[in-house]
Amino acid sequence: MNQVRVGMIGYKFMGKAHSHAYRDIPMFFPNTPRPVMKAICGRNEEAVRQAAGQFGWEEAATDWRELVSRDDIDLIDINAPSDAHKEIAIAAAGAGKHLFCEKPLALTLADAREMLAAAETAGVKHMVGFNYRFAPAVQLARKLIGEGRLGRIYHFRATFLQDWIVDPEFPLVWRLDKTIAGSGAHGDLGAHLIDMARFLVGEMTEVVGMSETFVKERPLPGSMTGLSATGSGSGSKGPVTVDDATLFLCRFANGALGSFEATRFAAGHRCTNSFEINGSLGSVKFDFERMNELQVYFTGDPADVQGFRRVLATDPAHAYSEAWWPPGHTIGYEHTFIHEMVECLKALQENRQPVPNFHDGVLCQAVLEAVERSIAEKRWVQIGEM
Amino acid sequence: MNQVRVGMIGYKFMGKAHSHAYRDIPMFFPNTPRPVMKAICGRNEEAVRQAAGQFGWEEAATDWRELVSRDDIDLIDINAPSDAHKEIAIAAAGAGKHLFCEKPLALTLADAREMLAAAETAGVKHMVGFNYRFAPAVQLARKLIGEGRLGRIYHFRATFLQDWIVDPEFPLVWRLDKTIAGSGAHGDLGAHLIDMARFLVGEMTEVVGMSETFVKERPLPGSMTGLSATGSGSGSKGPVTVDDATLFLCRFANGALGSFEATRFAAGHRCTNSFEINGSLGSVKFDFERMNELQVYFTGDPADVQGFRRVLATDPAHAYSEAWWPPGHTIGYEHTFIHEMVECLKALQENRQPVPNFHDGVLCQAVLEAVERSIAEKRWVQIGEM
Amino acid sequence: MNQVRVGMIGYKFMGKAHSHAYRDIPMFFPNTPRPVMKAICGRNEEAVRQAAGQFGWEEAATDWRELVSRDDIDLIDINAPSDAHKEIAIAAAGAGKHLFCEKPLALTLADAREMLAAAETAGVKHMVGFNYRFAPAVQLARKLIGEGRLGRIYHFRATFLQDWIVDPEFPLVWRLDKTIAGSGAHGDLGAHLIDMARFLVGEMTEVVGMSETFVKERPLPGSMTGLSATGSGSGSKGPVTVDDATLFLCRFANGALGSFEATRFAAGHRCTNSFEINGSLGSVKFDFERMNELQVYFTGDPADVQGFRRVLATDPAHAYSEAWWPPGHTIGYEHTFIHEMVECLKALQENRQPVPNFHDGVLCQAVLEAVERSIAEKRWVQIGEM
Amino acid sequence: MNQVRVGMIGYKFMGKAHSHAYRDIPMFFPNTPRPVMKAICGRNEEAVRQAAGQFGWEEAATDWRELVSRDDIDLIDINAPSDAHKEIAIAAAGAGKHLFCEKPLALTLADAREMLAAAETAGVKHMVGFNYRFAPAVQLARKLIGEGRLGRIYHFRATFLQDWIVDPEFPLVWRLDKTIAGSGAHGDLGAHLIDMARFLVGEMTEVVGMSETFVKERPLPGSMTGLSATGSGSGSKGPVTVDDATLFLCRFANGALGSFEATRFAAGHRCTNSFEINGSLGSVKFDFERMNELQVYFTGDPADVQGFRRVLATDPAHAYSEAWWPPGHTIGYEHTFIHEMVECLKALQENRQPVPNFHDGVLCQAVLEAVERSIAEKRWVQIGEM
Repeated sequence: MNQVRVGMIGYKFMGKAHSHAYRDIPMFFPNTPRPVMKAICGRNEEAVRQAAGQFGWEEAATDWRELVSRDDIDLIDINAPSDAHKEIAIAAAGAGKHLFCEKPLALTLADAREMLAAAETAGVKHMVGFNYRFAPAVQLARKLIGEGRLGRIYHFRATFLQDWIVDPEFPLVWRLDKTIAGSGAHGDLGAHLIDMARFLVGEMTEVVGMSETFVKERPLPGSMTGLSATGSGSGSKGPVTVDDATLFLCRFANGALGSFEATRFAAGHRCTNSFEINGSLGSVKFDFERMNELQVYFTGDPADVQGFRRVLATDPAHAYSEAWWPPGHTIGYEHTFIHEMVECLKALQENRQPVPNFHDGVLCQAVLEAVERSIAEKRWVQIGEM
Repeated sequence: MNQVRVGMIGYKFMGKAHSHAYRDIPMFFPNTPRPVMKAICGRNEEAVRQAAGQFGWEEAATDWRELVSRDDIDLIDINAPSDAHKEIAIAAAGAGKHLFCEKPLALTLADAREMLAAAETAGVKHMVGFNYRFAPAVQLARKLIGEGRLGRIYHFRATFLQDWIVDPEFPLVWRLDKTIAGSGAHGDLGAHLIDMARFLVGEMTEVVGMSETFVKERPLPGSMTGLSATGSGSGSKGPVTVDDATLFLCRFANGALGSFEATRFAAGHRCTNSFEINGSLGSVKFDFERMNELQVYFTGDPADVQGFRRVLATDPAHAYSEAWWPPGHTIGYEHTFIHEMVECLKALQENRQPVPNFHDGVLCQAVLEAVERSIAEKRWVQIGEM
Repeated sequence: MNQVRVGMIGYKFMGKAHSHAYRDIPMFFPNTPRPVMKAICGRNEEAVRQAAGQFGWEEAATDWRELVSRDDIDLIDINAPSDAHKEIAIAAAGAGKHLFCEKPLALTLADAREMLAAAETAGVKHMVGFNYRFAPAVQLARKLIGEGRLGRIYHFRATFLQDWIVDPEFPLVWRLDKTIAGSGAHGDLGAHLIDMARFLVGEMTEVVGMSETFVKERPLPGSMTGLSATGSGSGSKGPVTVDDATLFLCRFANGALGSFEATRFAAGHRCTNSFEINGSLGSVKFDFERMNELQVYFTGDPADVQGFRRVLATDPAHAYSEAWWPPGHTIGYEHTFIHEMVECLKALQENRQPVPNFHDGVLCQAVLEAVERSIAEKRWVQIGEM
Repeated sequence: MNQVRVGMIGYKFMGKAHSHAYRDIPMFFPNTPRPVMKAICGRNEEAVRQAAGQFGWEEAATDWRELVSRDDIDLIDINAPSDAHKEIAIAAAGAGKHLFCEKPLALTLADAREMLAAAETAGVKHMVGFNYRFAPAVQLARKLIGEGRLGRIYHFRATFLQDWIVDPEFPLVWRLDKTIAGSGAHGDLGAHLIDMARFLVGEMTEVVGMSETFVKERPLPGSMTGLSATGSGSGSKGPVTVDDATLFLCRFANGALGSFEATRFAAGHRCTNSFEINGSLGSVKFDFERMNELQVYFTGDPADVQGFRRVLATDPAHAYSEAWWPPGHTIGYEHTFIHEMVECLKALQENRQPVPNFHDGVLCQAVLEAVERSIAEKRWVQIGEM
């Protein structure tokens, strides 16, 4: 398998990031199957046609059902709004297409499970877009843990702090609407933390959480791009139906304790997706705003030179780094998508499931919903209940 | 009032820190009433005599009951082991002495309340030793919040991370014995976080927590100084009866959300007593390992130069700083005790209650116990229940 | 002008970076003239053919003279080894092609001047590849200075620290050979610092320098990619003919003082291209290893919150940022080339000289050679002497 | 020898720092000879009497000639204004007193040599106050170098950046008057860098420098304390006769290259006394504003975890730390003086010369003057010329 023919549904923030990944792979990862950018699909014909041209897709399409049934497509990449994931994924699996689906996999655990079942029934490959796993510094953390270099893990603490809606006049964009987004900071940001925890520490057994919507009404929106938006200027307001912030504690199956916080109300934090892990032999710290760096500490260092060391994960010893630039020449956000797609394409080539896949999407969703239940019922919830 | 005659009970880690504070005050705070170091008291006659000489006390004593009843003493400074606080404080209050008591005020909320009642009945002044409030950088945080410069507070998150018992061969010192210490990381470290939260954000209304003892048995101890110790070498082990780590979430009365973590198992962290506060107009961050610094962010900064600024709280504009050295010349841990004692002595001079006082000790203890109950009963606990 | 047809000579480290820039521009800067990747040229036919395929060029070529005379090419991009720049540039200018030339413009000031004269005589546009100017954080520094927000400039200090040849067994690659590279750390790294100084502070008037080759002989090389290489294993050694480190001091025309250091012997620094500027109203600091950040200080901040603020230059207020991702989502090394090429293409569209251009290349070279003369003659050298 | 009787001449910024050191030593370094604070001396009787009381000296004196001839004094501590050092030191040595002299030892190299000769002739002990050597983090740097753990040293770069006179309205205090202060940033700040370089890397062989006085006239002063001052309000101005900033390059005898910068015009830097050293096996970085930390890098670390580690020099493995608080509990500026005095007192006890002593003062002064000559004559100057 030298190439994979892709049909992509969605063309906004994530659609752009994915498109760029497809474009860069042949240049920087020439031994990976070449993605062929067959068609991009969206409801707004003019917009999708414009995106097709700008992003480099062969065709623009508006009917995703037609797209998923085409013979000349191997992989369906789903980055449409979250509420559309399930229907598309099940249809595409039914048509025998491999699946790449942005996170969150679905709006509910039940939906996520249906999607996984459909993919398994169809025997197709499936991947879910937890891109932050693919920062080389995160890969290094995984490697250190996997090799036992941090010892037994005692603590995982993570925060995903943003501040783009601190201003109460920021409008009521779709990400603040539960019917489209499913949840707010919890599903958008917390989901990444949960996946990171699962990737690095393992499964959780129980959770207890808390959430809040600090600004309960906002101006109705005009247009939105990325995380920016303008108000409609109409003076009307509507209710925010998702959480502004969600925090929870957990226990992991291996005995570690976890602390999680996702918020869009942390002034000064544009994108502090951060974690720290403490083990019996050492610790690691990561902050996505300095995504090329991992802070690493070893208890076994000589007594007079113990301290967190700042590892710039751009050396040949670091994952993916040899595809890029010399040591010290950093990479950015978009590279996480490139690496993620490399994993997807390699897995197809090697006829194995990519990682993370729909199983991971389901398990992440189970934790998300366990936290939501914990909040609703104000109690500890076992993940096993879900 | 130009001087305050002090009798101090306790002569180890805290006794040394307090003694040094008394010694430094006349030199650096000449307008503060001069503490007269009358007598230091402890059970081990030889050790307390040695301490008296080394620390500069006029006399050494072994009978605290006699000490608290002396006519030539105005203030009793209690930094004996925590299980002795209550009895001493009540007796000293009964003898009409003003009280300075190290934290934790007592081993239980009931005891703390008794102590407060005794002090109030006796009409004496009382202070509790939450020294971290007195770092100039923390005072700056308080000032910014008090002046409304951070706006409405949304988040408080704090960790007190240490690593001195990560090694499972570290011996079973008194701080790991519930009968003496009351609790482990929670009461020792978490208490400081709770006080900081109350100082900066206000009262909490409900909590839910989790704790763990990772290493359940340890070698019996030899001797201990500060946080260092040696094993007895006997090969025997005993049970650790306190928590190694305690985490909890809370809601504050003003609507803010809080996250707390105290642990002695965070490899690489010697003394990360840290907090971050996010408000509608700005944020602050503090880490005691860089205690002279406060990170400050304002949402109102010009759009192109928004960012956390590192304020070195050594300028004339910062609390206590003019007593010390020129800007940029930092101070250390011990200075928090000096400032704390300045507050105590000034309050006596001004005939007002020092802050923080036994009320703060009681309210801190209430949160500590609410968290413990939450852990024991695995549920959210209202502070009002306590 | 909607497109620019490019012929590129060179296909290694810089050739890859430039190719990627051409590929990304239509996607992220759709309003910039579209670069058409006509032909890539190099001496090794197989290698250049492979590069053409991998990087996305329409054709591979081996004869640069033929390439520069083609009618269907508008812009010649020269990133061949430095010793070939002059001949190519002059020929291409003679053929009426616009020029993009990697730094250093030439191996000598005389050559650089000849190239500039040729370009001016031909009336073509010319640009030189000082890519670091195009980091958004650097652009912010420029903007702050240009708007007078730092006041009168007193100090510029800059270091470009690398460590890839600290190991004395690292082989004698072409960058260590004066006949090909012209100079060592000075021309390779110092040139970037000089350009940055000129960009941010202005022209220098006099310099005094010092240099050293710490490891005077090295194993003969095998192959090299980027900054990595392997020894030939033959056991033979050859002389290092360039500087390992060069430092110099300067005065600027505006009265500021400058300090420069370029070295490949700073263990622990992979790519510390850093500067700090102090003015009467404020200061800025930059380190390329954290290229998305600019540290900014203003003397006019309120007395209690003065401090360097860490500005993450990913907000809409920052140059180029709106073409990329939401705030806090960082970019990397390669983006400096994309922005640089955007400037080149826009200048062609607007029929103006790009900045920086061959004038800047000449002026940078004049400083480089003044420093070399200062070292050779062990004295202060006026830039005007050159 | 269990005690050392001290007479101190000077009672301002340094007098206070030294007094505090004498007060703290018996408490924290009980095995060091106890300093007996016999008499403090200054010209203003009222002020010195006030200082005696506040700082804890037995007597106040106004005639230093009488003081240095008293029989009941062992050590004369000279921290009077720099222009008075020589006369006092020579007289005190003549009277057989041991000497502690603040830096700069003298205003000229010739004077410094006379002072050294006088001390040697008299056979007394002599120390010079380069207090920054005594930060535990600096001691760690020295230890790593001494043990060969950084290998061969290639680079030393240091800056002492302050900003207290950036405001052109800051008055013309004595530190800006050449007749009293000898020089400006160079002698005040640069001297510390030179001593640090000598302590860590060794002797220099040649230098070339540059200096500037950016603000050439200032308002006549009112009063000054520490580094703060107020203008007289008279509207009159006077000439600044010292350098605002001095930079120089050097070669060390061991082949290393050095870069030095001292300035009072670096906005945002209150006290950035910093250095970095790069060796063949590793590097260290220090910044006095974070004086408890040393950044340490080793080339021999495993390939995937190379990076500067932040060592908090508060562990038992670090110099002086066991006298203070548990790991992670930092110390401040004043502690450098305490450690310095411990060295002085121990040397007296052990009947050896303290380090650094007048030899170091002389050698530092030789470099200072070589730089001044280099500036005056605009050429490289050999230290051997001096």
